[in-house]
Amino acid sequence: MGRIAEAALLQLAARALVSHGVPLADAERTARVLVTGDLLGVHTHGVERIASYAARVASRGVNPNPRIAVERPAPALVKVDGDNGLGPVVAMWALDEAMSVARELGVGIALARRSNHLGAVAPYSLVAAEAGFASIIASNASTTIAPTGGREARLGNSPIAFCVPNPAGRPFLLDMALSVVARAKIRDAARRGVAIPDTWATDREGRPTTDPKAALEGVLLPAGAHKGYGLALAVDLFAGLLSGGEYLTHVRSWADEPDQPSGIGHFFVLLDARRLGSPEWLAARMGDFASILHATPPADPSMPVRVPGELELDKLERRRREGLDIGDAVLEKLRVLSAS
Amino acid sequence: MGRIAEAALLQLAARALVSHGVPLADAERTARVLVTGDLLGVHTHGVERIASYAARVASRGVNPNPRIAVERPAPALVKVDGDNGLGPVVAMWALDEAMSVARELGVGIALARRSNHLGAVAPYSLVAAEAGFASIIASNASTTIAPTGGREARLGNSPIAFCVPNPAGRPFLLDMALSVVARAKIRDAARRGVAIPDTWATDREGRPTTDPKAALEGVLLPAGAHKGYGLALAVDLFAGLLSGGEYLTHVRSWADEPDQPSGIGHFFVLLDARRLGSPEWLAARMGDFASILHATPPADPSMPVRVPGELELDKLERRRREGLDIGDAVLEKLRVLSAS
Repeated sequence: MGRIAEAALLQLAARALVSHGVPLADAERTARVLVTGDLLGVHTHGVERIASYAARVASRGVNPNPRIAVERPAPALVKVDGDNGLGPVVAMWALDEAMSVARELGVGIALARRSNHLGAVAPYSLVAAEAGFASIIASNASTTIAPTGGREARLGNSPIAFCVPNPAGRPFLLDMALSVVARAKIRDAARRGVAIPDTWATDREGRPTTDPKAALEGVLLPAGAHKGYGLALAVDLFAGLLSGGEYLTHVRSWADEPDQPSGIGHFFVLLDARRLGSPEWLAARMGDFASILHATPPADPSMPVRVPGELELDKLERRRREGLDIGDAVLEKLRVLSAS
Repeated sequence: MGRIAEAALLQLAARALVSHGVPLADAERTARVLVTGDLLGVHTHGVERIASYAARVASRGVNPNPRIAVERPAPALVKVDGDNGLGPVVAMWALDEAMSVARELGVGIALARRSNHLGAVAPYSLVAAEAGFASIIASNASTTIAPTGGREARLGNSPIAFCVPNPAGRPFLLDMALSVVARAKIRDAARRGVAIPDTWATDREGRPTTDPKAALEGVLLPAGAHKGYGLALAVDLFAGLLSGGEYLTHVRSWADEPDQPSGIGHFFVLLDARRLGSPEWLAARMGDFASILHATPPADPSMPVRVPGELELDKLERRRREGLDIGDAVLEKLRVLSAS
């Protein structure tokens, strides 16, 4: 079976990267981000990515030994040049910088450019929350979404996460991308030969479609129509345009051009919640906030109302105790990679 | 007809507030925010609100002479206690504080509590953009939206705006609330006796409905389903919970309890874009960003792809030249209010 303990998976994932020329500390850092993705149940942003990370390092599409450069153009503002390093390496660097500024000034913003795929955003949010920071973290991405009213992809399915720590319990954790569904869900429907709702994607003429095969030739639709479109653009402006990185169609797809730098950018807004009140004050408010939501009469009595992040944090706790099931194929591939 | 020049409308709106006991400077500030709402075409957040603002001041539901208190718990972080003043007065105060901090440190966050309805968010975003700041601004609101899977309103239709300045042209301006549509659209459908899409609202049992009358007894649905729900909660956490203000069901509805403080909170993230590069650098990138979107092949050839804010800024420019048509009834009401 594919079940493996967290520590063993961390080691295996790091070894796979080290064997492709990534320095140990960077490999461990990257493994930590991806394994946290798996712990949260976001397997599409978990260790199954190691294979493509390793391949891109091998082809020098990603720089395994980046010289990450940090500028501080203003006291509360940091710019990070990732030198085309692995996304999790650059992003953790930028997060550390933003936390350090926020510890000093209460607030810190870091803008990172010349980075790559950073995995899921939630692992960074959790690192910040454990250190006492509320955060808004986002990344741009290569183009898969058409603008509202357009029929060609012009923007990425950018993820954005909002997280607020809770000194006495679970943080609020919202990590979402801005399409209605991930492309993987449409591929799955195509494989199973079932129709999809016409709100998920368009065909290649820009018309909404229920045919998953036609949808795979078209583009993803943003969540909430023009609202998701606008929000994805906002992320791209802060993470890509203002960071000095690439944006919109300038971001390269690592599926189509794996040997080229992606030019992806990230942004991190960190707020030190300890400056706002005592841990008891924050814990009481966060507990009350969740209680009000949990007490909502559910539409379906068997489905209680949830606070974002709860299901994922349930999984994380269980898997930390019981190990992860990431599937035999992924595990076997990791073993091969780490031995090569 | 209801057409009136901007300057005349500003004066009329301010006079209506002054005649209800609002100091002149605060009345002018509030009028400026609401008239900008009208200029942008957001009439539901324009001068038609003056009547309810004046009524709440008259009933002492809102404090016409607030002692706004500012704390700076950390160098880049400001907390504003609005003392139950008019929303635009408190919000402009907090925005000024955040801009002043961001001018000094590159980044500033202001959290405002004990405020009231602030009008649309876009007017604040535009003030910030004209002064050279990129911004994320949001407010919580009294409960009209049910959590995903719930059948009672537990959170507000909170607005959030993202804005990036363009030194050589129009800013990017996204101002949105987090329901699929505003309640006013459902009331309109009920009046006209037409069905609504089942994605807009639920009936009072929490079931999606196409009957606008049933929808008015139910709750609004968030845009993008659980994504809009999560985002509305994130806004409430930053604007309400972290600010020390009210949140979720603790925010009072000024329709149901007009003589009580709303307890609304706002948050302002300001980033001084001039610290990131020259005006020419930013203008070139903003121009390129818009061009890429405009060049997208449209699904319908008669409907070119738009960048968020363009239609609203078109209206604003035209109305600044030609005057505003806000309707005879609203204008007449303002005249009565300003004479009373």
